[in-house]
Amino acid sequence: MIDAAAVREHLDALAKPQRSLGRLEDLAVRLAVVQQRLDPVTHPRRIVLFAGDHGVVAQGVTAWPQAVTGLMVETIRAGRATSSALAAAQRCDLRLVDVGVAMPPAPPHPDFYHQASIAPGTADLVIGPAMTVDQFDAAWAVGAEEARRAHADGHVVLIAGEMGIGNTTPAACLTALLADAPPEQAVGRGAGADDAILATKARVVADAVARASAQFPDEPRAAIASIAGFEIAAMAGFFAQGAAQGSTLLLDGYVATAGALVAETLAPGTRDAMIAAHRSAEPGHAAALARLGIEPLLDWQMRLGEGTGALVALPLIDSAAALLRDVALLSDLGV
Amino acid sequence: MIDAAAVREHLDALAKPQRSLGRLEDLAVRLAVVQQRLDPVTHPRRIVLFAGDHGVVAQGVTAWPQAVTGLMVETIRAGRATSSALAAAQRCDLRLVDVGVAMPPAPPHPDFYHQASIAPGTADLVIGPAMTVDQFDAAWAVGAEEARRAHADGHVVLIAGEMGIGNTTPAACLTALLADAPPEQAVGRGAGADDAILATKARVVADAVARASAQFPDEPRAAIASIAGFEIAAMAGFFAQGAAQGSTLLLDGYVATAGALVAETLAPGTRDAMIAAHRSAEPGHAAALARLGIEPLLDWQMRLGEGTGALVALPLIDSAAALLRDVALLSDLGV
Repeated sequence: MIDAAAVREHLDALAKPQRSLGRLEDLAVRLAVVQQRLDPVTHPRRIVLFAGDHGVVAQGVTAWPQAVTGLMVETIRAGRATSSALAAAQRCDLRLVDVGVAMPPAPPHPDFYHQASIAPGTADLVIGPAMTVDQFDAAWAVGAEEARRAHADGHVVLIAGEMGIGNTTPAACLTALLADAPPEQAVGRGAGADDAILATKARVVADAVARASAQFPDEPRAAIASIAGFEIAAMAGFFAQGAAQGSTLLLDGYVATAGALVAETLAPGTRDAMIAAHRSAEPGHAAALARLGIEPLLDWQMRLGEGTGALVALPLIDSAAALLRDVALLSDLGV
Repeated sequence: MIDAAAVREHLDALAKPQRSLGRLEDLAVRLAVVQQRLDPVTHPRRIVLFAGDHGVVAQGVTAWPQAVTGLMVETIRAGRATSSALAAAQRCDLRLVDVGVAMPPAPPHPDFYHQASIAPGTADLVIGPAMTVDQFDAAWAVGAEEARRAHADGHVVLIAGEMGIGNTTPAACLTALLADAPPEQAVGRGAGADDAILATKARVVADAVARASAQFPDEPRAAIASIAGFEIAAMAGFFAQGAAQGSTLLLDGYVATAGALVAETLAPGTRDAMIAAHRSAEPGHAAALARLGIEPLLDWQMRLGEGTGALVALPLIDSAAALLRDVALLSDLGV
């Protein structure tokens, strides 16, 4: 069992002044404890982007038309999205999985674009449950299968990202439900909501969470399914399976963290495999990370999604791993 | 002329919500303005580590014996130092230059270890000038030549790092002299000074800066030389030449920033080529960065030196470059 004290002891024995790398050493401690080894590895790694649409966009909770989800799927598939650019720059393999995009996206590609659509978007979570429990289980299974596949392909660090217009609304619902955040604190501007949209979103989230709590007081899976998104359920399954198989999970922003809250609720201990990449500009993200008990690496006011915050932070764990793995001991120098 | 507004305009036209990458976009703006292009490049890159010793260690300003400088030169040469590990992880070429190590270091190596020793350590800056102006010019020229060589070898991003037991003392002197920081604010614990060492260091710095100011009121180069280190003078020449030839300079911590203050004083405008990697745990670093007018990327309480803070931050500029260079325009999507 490698605990934090054992990692600190190793770091303190390296050929450098003790504690002289500050938060990089904290990250090294977390990485070594997650991987249970003093010579952690961070290559190869993969990001899986899960895309899905949301019936709740009919309520006017977002500034963007729903068609943008499909257009961004095309853009990711073409390698021209922000996630594509960052994944290439940071030597991270990328896969794209359609779990419920409304508009027909680009044709699948056996290597990196998989179609596993549960339905063409969730139902409107204001009117009724966003999805059935069976649909939730199916989306979870798609994510779990992607984690298994990444592991089989040799990837040691896994990132889940998402694309889905409107998905900060289910993320806010899940944060309110699972991290005990007041709905008004869980709601933010997402990809650019103005004041009117923000007010609508706050009302929608408060109503949906109240209904989910009242309707399914003793059925957490059903309560979660009623306010989730397909890509969020898939990320949850991805995280739970990733943790179970010993992968290192690098957690992106607000929507991904909602998936992590779902995973931790239904598969407790999943968080122990996680490193939080950043604290997003979404106000509810801090509460969600606090519930998971993990400290983010960057506080850079990022709020794009698509796993981009995790991709920006990814090379920081490369440095932490190199520090632990490749630096001489002070005793080797005869000091 | 590409100014910040032009870069913002380009970023706002990309296929992502506007301003959704927060501080990564600020970094992209700085990078594009420094390079005067909207498709910046960050590969290949090189770190040059300048090593030198300091006569002032005789005053008891450091917890480490002077021999450690030579031992660390050996460790870097063997590829087993923190800087070696991080440079390899972040795909950064590394060169090591002896500008004044006291103890005979490892034999030179034509590819990556160059001996250009000015003297076996500076004189004790408490007793008299640390070096002559001729020595200062010679060290500066070594650094400038390294910048020229890196440019000729095709490197676009340059980092200067340093190794020299005791070198936070001249760095504090230069910060006090050139950034108008009170000596007690410029002095920190460096690589692990205790309270007694810290008090000695504060007295040494105050005395040396007062003497330099009194002795050379109208000769900034002579005043600087009298309280500098060979590796700091070499970094200053490296920065000035790097900026003049159009390289992008990624600035490390407190000692490197003292070199940057020297460069900016003697070759004004050098700062315009700089991106500050981090704010170090040394208390005077904030004042030095403020004088240069550049915002650091990370505030991670790092204080190792050897260019390690810059190497940790280096891949962040890769992400900023990829964002500008590789992401589709929103107009390409028909949104």
